[in-house]
Amino acid sequence: MPDGKSPGDARQAYYARIGRKNMAPLWESLHNLVPRQPAPRCVPAIWKYEDVRADVLASGSLISAEEAVRRVLILENPGLRGQASVTQTLYAGLQLILPGEIAPSHRHSQSALRFIVEGRTAYTAVNGERTTMHPGDFIITPSWTWHDHGNAEAAEGGEPVVWLDGLDIPLLRMLDAGFAENYPAATQPVTRPEGDSGARYGYNMLPVRHQAAHASSSPIFNYPYERSREALDRLYRHGELDAWDGVKLRYVNPATGGYPMPTMGTFMQFLPAGFQGRTSRATDSTVYCVVEGRGSARIGNQEFAFAPHDVFVAPSWQPVQLAALEDATLFSYSDRPVQAALGLWRESRED
Amino acid sequence: MPDGKSPGDARQAYYARIGRKNMAPLWESLHNLVPRQPAPRCVPAIWKYEDVRADVLASGSLISAEEAVRRVLILENPGLRGQASVTQTLYAGLQLILPGEIAPSHRHSQSALRFIVEGRTAYTAVNGERTTMHPGDFIITPSWTWHDHGNAEAAEGGEPVVWLDGLDIPLLRMLDAGFAENYPAATQPVTRPEGDSGARYGYNMLPVRHQAAHASSSPIFNYPYERSREALDRLYRHGELDAWDGVKLRYVNPATGGYPMPTMGTFMQFLPAGFQGRTSRATDSTVYCVVEGRGSARIGNQEFAFAPHDVFVAPSWQPVQLAALEDATLFSYSDRPVQAALGLWRESRED
Amino acid sequence: MPDGKSPGDARQAYYARIGRKNMAPLWESLHNLVPRQPAPRCVPAIWKYEDVRADVLASGSLISAEEAVRRVLILENPGLRGQASVTQTLYAGLQLILPGEIAPSHRHSQSALRFIVEGRTAYTAVNGERTTMHPGDFIITPSWTWHDHGNAEAAEGGEPVVWLDGLDIPLLRMLDAGFAENYPAATQPVTRPEGDSGARYGYNMLPVRHQAAHASSSPIFNYPYERSREALDRLYRHGELDAWDGVKLRYVNPATGGYPMPTMGTFMQFLPAGFQGRTSRATDSTVYCVVEGRGSARIGNQEFAFAPHDVFVAPSWQPVQLAALEDATLFSYSDRPVQAALGLWRESRED
Amino acid sequence: MPDGKSPGDARQAYYARIGRKNMAPLWESLHNLVPRQPAPRCVPAIWKYEDVRADVLASGSLISAEEAVRRVLILENPGLRGQASVTQTLYAGLQLILPGEIAPSHRHSQSALRFIVEGRTAYTAVNGERTTMHPGDFIITPSWTWHDHGNAEAAEGGEPVVWLDGLDIPLLRMLDAGFAENYPAATQPVTRPEGDSGARYGYNMLPVRHQAAHASSSPIFNYPYERSREALDRLYRHGELDAWDGVKLRYVNPATGGYPMPTMGTFMQFLPAGFQGRTSRATDSTVYCVVEGRGSARIGNQEFAFAPHDVFVAPSWQPVQLAALEDATLFSYSDRPVQAALGLWRESRED
Repeated sequence: MPDGKSPGDARQAYYARIGRKNMAPLWESLHNLVPRQPAPRCVPAIWKYEDVRADVLASGSLISAEEAVRRVLILENPGLRGQASVTQTLYAGLQLILPGEIAPSHRHSQSALRFIVEGRTAYTAVNGERTTMHPGDFIITPSWTWHDHGNAEAAEGGEPVVWLDGLDIPLLRMLDAGFAENYPAATQPVTRPEGDSGARYGYNMLPVRHQAAHASSSPIFNYPYERSREALDRLYRHGELDAWDGVKLRYVNPATGGYPMPTMGTFMQFLPAGFQGRTSRATDSTVYCVVEGRGSARIGNQEFAFAPHDVFVAPSWQPVQLAALEDATLFSYSDRPVQAALGLWRESRED
Repeated sequence: MPDGKSPGDARQAYYARIGRKNMAPLWESLHNLVPRQPAPRCVPAIWKYEDVRADVLASGSLISAEEAVRRVLILENPGLRGQASVTQTLYAGLQLILPGEIAPSHRHSQSALRFIVEGRTAYTAVNGERTTMHPGDFIITPSWTWHDHGNAEAAEGGEPVVWLDGLDIPLLRMLDAGFAENYPAATQPVTRPEGDSGARYGYNMLPVRHQAAHASSSPIFNYPYERSREALDRLYRHGELDAWDGVKLRYVNPATGGYPMPTMGTFMQFLPAGFQGRTSRATDSTVYCVVEGRGSARIGNQEFAFAPHDVFVAPSWQPVQLAALEDATLFSYSDRPVQAALGLWRESRED
Repeated sequence: MPDGKSPGDARQAYYARIGRKNMAPLWESLHNLVPRQPAPRCVPAIWKYEDVRADVLASGSLISAEEAVRRVLILENPGLRGQASVTQTLYAGLQLILPGEIAPSHRHSQSALRFIVEGRTAYTAVNGERTTMHPGDFIITPSWTWHDHGNAEAAEGGEPVVWLDGLDIPLLRMLDAGFAENYPAATQPVTRPEGDSGARYGYNMLPVRHQAAHASSSPIFNYPYERSREALDRLYRHGELDAWDGVKLRYVNPATGGYPMPTMGTFMQFLPAGFQGRTSRATDSTVYCVVEGRGSARIGNQEFAFAPHDVFVAPSWQPVQLAALEDATLFSYSDRPVQAALGLWRESRED
Repeated sequence: MPDGKSPGDARQAYYARIGRKNMAPLWESLHNLVPRQPAPRCVPAIWKYEDVRADVLASGSLISAEEAVRRVLILENPGLRGQASVTQTLYAGLQLILPGEIAPSHRHSQSALRFIVEGRTAYTAVNGERTTMHPGDFIITPSWTWHDHGNAEAAEGGEPVVWLDGLDIPLLRMLDAGFAENYPAATQPVTRPEGDSGARYGYNMLPVRHQAAHASSSPIFNYPYERSREALDRLYRHGELDAWDGVKLRYVNPATGGYPMPTMGTFMQFLPAGFQGRTSRATDSTVYCVVEGRGSARIGNQEFAFAPHDVFVAPSWQPVQLAALEDATLFSYSDRPVQAALGLWRESRED
C-alpha cells in the first residue's frame, strides 16, 4: 500500500484508539460471546472422600475454630482455580466442626445448604430453632437468616462432624448483591423447640395464616434423610425407575411448590444395584454428593468411580451417564431454579 | 291529582310496563342487593351424629347400592331447604357403603372431599390408585378425575363405613359449569399400588419433572389422620395455642402451596380440654366435622354442644366462638379459596 | 305386604323423618345435582334499545336522583325474574343520569363496570380522579373503591347520559361476601387530574415502584373506545379474522396481564359486514352490548336481530353464532375470570 | 520449633497439599467471599457520544457488514476490560448499520434490547414482523427469537443508523446456558405487517386466547419513544416528581405485568430543567443512555456531565444522584428482574 500500512495495521491502530476509550470490536469476539452451545470453563471433577477426609480432619488441629470462623476446605473446580467455585455459579466446601466448638451466628444474602457427611452430634440453628444434623440430612440456611452451628462437648459424646456446604457465592458475587453481618452474640437465642418447623410445615399442612413471600425459601429447614430415603424406597418398590435418573425427587418448599431456596435446586435419587443409566445433559452444572453405594458417573468423556461421600461435578451441557454397582443414593444441587426463573433451563435426553 | 292518579299509581304502572320488558327498578331493591354486610340465608345448624346415625344406617336396608349409585343423606341447611346445600356454595352429605358394595366410577367438574367418620374397610380409587379410608382421613376426588368407592366383603371383615361428603355442587350450579360422565365399567383399573401418591408427593419432595397445572388440585389424595393429628399434637406440645383457633392448620397442595382443591379449603384444628376461644368471624361459611372430643360452638346467638362426628355450620360473618370440654379435634371446610382468589375474603377477630 | 305398606310408603315415611332432621335423600336428586352438562335456568334474551330507551328516559321524570341514589332499570333475565340477575352470577342495568345530577359516592365489595351507551357529559370518579365518559368507553369501579358519578349542568351543555352497569351482585350474594358503605360527602375530593391513571398505567409502562396486589383490579379505570376501536381496526386491516369471533380482544390489567377486575372478564370484538360466524359455546354466560352496526345472534335455537345499544345474553354452554349485516362492534362481559381461576372454564368450537 | 518449622510453614505445606487436590482454605478468603456489602469490580464510567461517534462511524469504512455480521463497538467497563461487559452481568455496544446493509438473521438464548440513538431508516425484524426504528424507541429481540436488521438503500434515503445494544451476554456466560444458531437465509420472511404486534398487544387489550408462557418476554417488541415521552410529559404536567427519580416509569410486558424480558429491566425517566435529585443506591448495576437534555450524574465520588446519547454506568450499591440543566430524558437498563426473581434486589434512599 502507498503509505506502507496494511489494512491489518489500520485495524490494529483503530483497535488501539478505541481501546483507550474503553471500547472493543465485537466482530473479533462475537463467536465466543454468543457460542452455539455452552462451552463451560468448569470441568468434570471428583473429590474422593477417602483422599480428602484426612485433610479435612487435619484442619481441626491446624486451625482453631476461633481463627477459622468456619473451618472449611473449599472444593475448587480445576477449571476455575482461585475463584472459590465448584461450578461457575456455585460454591462447595467440606466443613469440619469438632466437639465443643461453635461456628458463630451471622447472616448473609447468600443462601446456603448443608448436606451432612459424617457425625451425629452437631446442630444448626436457624430462626431460633436448633436441629440436630444426621448423615444424609439436607438442611437450609436461607438468605439473610441468622444461623450458627455447634457440636456437643466430647464429654457428652460429641464427635467430629463433617458436612458439605453448598452456597451461591459466585452467583451473588457476579450479581454484586451480597450483604453480610455478624450476630451480636456467638449463638442466637433458642426460642423454639427442636422439630418445630418440621411439625408446623412438614406434614402437608401449613399454619392457617401462613403467607409465602415472593421468592421466599422453605419454612422447613431440615429435610431428614430418614424421610427422603423412605420416599425413594417406596417408589422403587412401586416399580418407578426412570431410564436416565433411576428414582429421582426434588426437595420442595411446601408453601409454594418451588425449590427450597430460590437460587439452588436440590435433588435426591436412588439407583438400584446394576442400574445403567442412559445419557442426558442439562444446562445447570450439578454437584453430586454420594450418600450410599458405589457406582460410576460418565461425564463428558471422563469416567469417575464413586463411593460414599464422594463429591463430583457435571458441567453444563456435558453428557452424563450414571451407573450403580450397589444400591446407591445421590444427593445433588445446581442453579436450576435460577435458570428456570429466567426461562433459560434446557435439558436433552438421548434415547 | 287532576287525572285521579297518585304518583304511586304512576310508578306501579311504570313498574308493570317495564316488568313486561324484563326490567325492574333498582331503586326499590338497591339496599338488599348491596347490603352493608353479609346477610346470609344460610343459618347456624348442627347435625348430632347420635340423632342421625340410625337414619344413615337405615338407608342401607331401604335402598340398594345399585339403586342409589351413591347412598347419601344430604345435610340441608335449614335456611336453604330444597337446595341440597349446607351453605350457599357447598354441599354436605353422609354417605354409607355396606360390606361388599361398590359406588361405581364416574367423574364430574364438581370437586369432592371425603372425611371419614366410621369404619375402616372401604376404599376410594382415584387416578388408578386405591386408598383405604380410616376415620379422620381427609381424601380428595378432584374435579374431572375418575373415582369410585368400594367396601370389603363381610366375609373379609368388611363393616359399614360412613363418611362425610363435601362438594361444591351449589357453586357449580350457580356458575353453570358442571359436567359429568360415567366410567364404562363399575370400577376403574388399579394401576398403581396403594400409597403411591403419598410416596411420590407427600414427603416434602416431588418427582423431578412434576409440573403443577394452573388451578390444579393436590397430587396427594389421602391426607391420613394419623399424620395430621401428630402435627397438631407436636405443635400443641411446643406451646402453640391461638386464642381464637387453638392449634389450626390448613391442608396444602405441596406442588403449589395452595389449597388441596381450588374451590374448597380444608382445615384441622385442636382445642385442648378447657379451651375457651375468643370470637371471630369470616366471610366463608364453614362446615365443621368433629373428630374427637366434646365442646361447644357459639355461632351468632346460638350455642351448640358438640360431640364426635357431629357436623355443624357457621354462616358467613356470624360470630363464632369455640370451646372444648375435652381435648377436641375439628375438621372443617369452606369456600375460602374461591373468595381469596377473587380478593373477597375477610375476617375479623375480637379482642 | 303384610302390614299393607308398600316399599314406596316406607320410603316416604323415611324421607319425612329425615326431612325433619334437615336431611334429604341424594339418590332422588343426584341426576339434577350433577348434570351431564350445564342446564342453565338463565335463557337467551335481548333488550332492544329502541324498545327500552323511552322507559329509561321516563325514569328521569318519574323519580328524582335523590330518591334513586342510582336511577337504573335492572335487566332481568326472563329465566331468573325477581333475582336482579342477567345471568346467574351477573347483574346488568341501564343507568340514567340527567344534567346537573350526581350519584353520590359509596363503595362496596361488588365490582362494577360501566359501558357508555349515549351522552358525553357525565363523569365517573374513582380514587380521586374523574373521567369523562364517552359512548363505547369501558370504565371500571373496582371492589371497595369509592366512586361517584355526575353530569354537567344543562346550562353547561349537559345532556342525559345512559350507560350499561355490569356488576357481580348475584355472585357476591351467593358467596355472602358483600359489604358496602357510603362516603361522608356526596362526592369524593378530586385529587388527581383527569387522565392521570391513563398516563400512569396505560402506555405499556408502569410507575417504577408499582406493586400489583393479589387479586387486584386494573389501575387503568377508563379504557376509551377510541383506542379499543383503533386496535380492532388495525388488526382487521392486517387480515386478522377468526371464523368464530371475528376480531376479538380482551381488556387487560397491564400490571398483571389478567382481567381488569377479578370477577368479570370484558371483551370487544369487531365483525365486518357480511361476517357469518361459526358456532361455539362456553361455560361463561355472556352479556353483549352492541356498540355499532346491525347483525344477528343465534343463541341456542333462537335468533336475535341486533342493532346499536341492544343488550343480549348467551347462557352457559348454549351454541352461539354471530353474524353482521354492517360492520359491527360488540362489547361483552362474563364471569370467565372466576371460572378460569377455579379451573372450570370450558369452551367448544364447531368446525 | 524442634523441627525448625514455624506454624506458618506448616500451614503453607498444608495449603500446598490440599491445593494439589483442588481444595483451598475458606478461612483465608471468607471475608472477600461474603462481603459486608457489594464491592463491585465494575466502576462508574461514561462514554461521551461526541468522543465516540466518529469511531462508530469509522467502523463503517474499516469493516464491511459481511465481515462484521454485527458492526458493533463494545462498551467495556474500565473495571472489567477484556470481558465484553459493561456491568458484571450485562453487555452494551454501539451498533452501526449503513444504508443498504443487512445484519443477517439469527437467534440466541441471550436476550437483547436495541435503544435507537440516531438515524431513522433502519428496521429490526422479529417473529416475521419488521419495525422501523426511530431515535428513542426501545426494541426487544427476546431470547431464542429469530431477528435481523436492515437499512434502506442510500438511493431510497437510507442514512447511517446507530443504536445501543444491551444484552445479558455475561450473565448467560456465567450460567453456561447460551445457545445460538443462524437462520438459513439472510433475512427471515415478513409474515405480518408493520405495527401488528403493537396493535395486537399494545392497546391495553390482548387477543382473547393469548396465554403468556412462564418467564416469557413481551409480545410488544417496539415501545416507541413518541408514546413513552408522552406518558412522562403528561405525568410531569400532573405534578408527579419524585425527589430521587424525577418521573420514572418502567417498561412492562402487558401480558404479565413483568419486565419486557426476564433478564433485563428497562426504564425511562424525565428530569425537568433544574432538577437536583437526592441520593439513592440499588444492587442492580445500571446502564443509562441519555435521550434528551444535559445534566450531571454523581456516581460514587465521581461526577459526570452528560449530554444527549452519552452512555454511563452506575455500579451496584454506589450512591447515585442525578441533576438536569435542561429538561432531560434518560433510558436505562439493568439486571433488576434477575435480582427480584431471586429475592436479592435491595435499594436504599437517603433523605
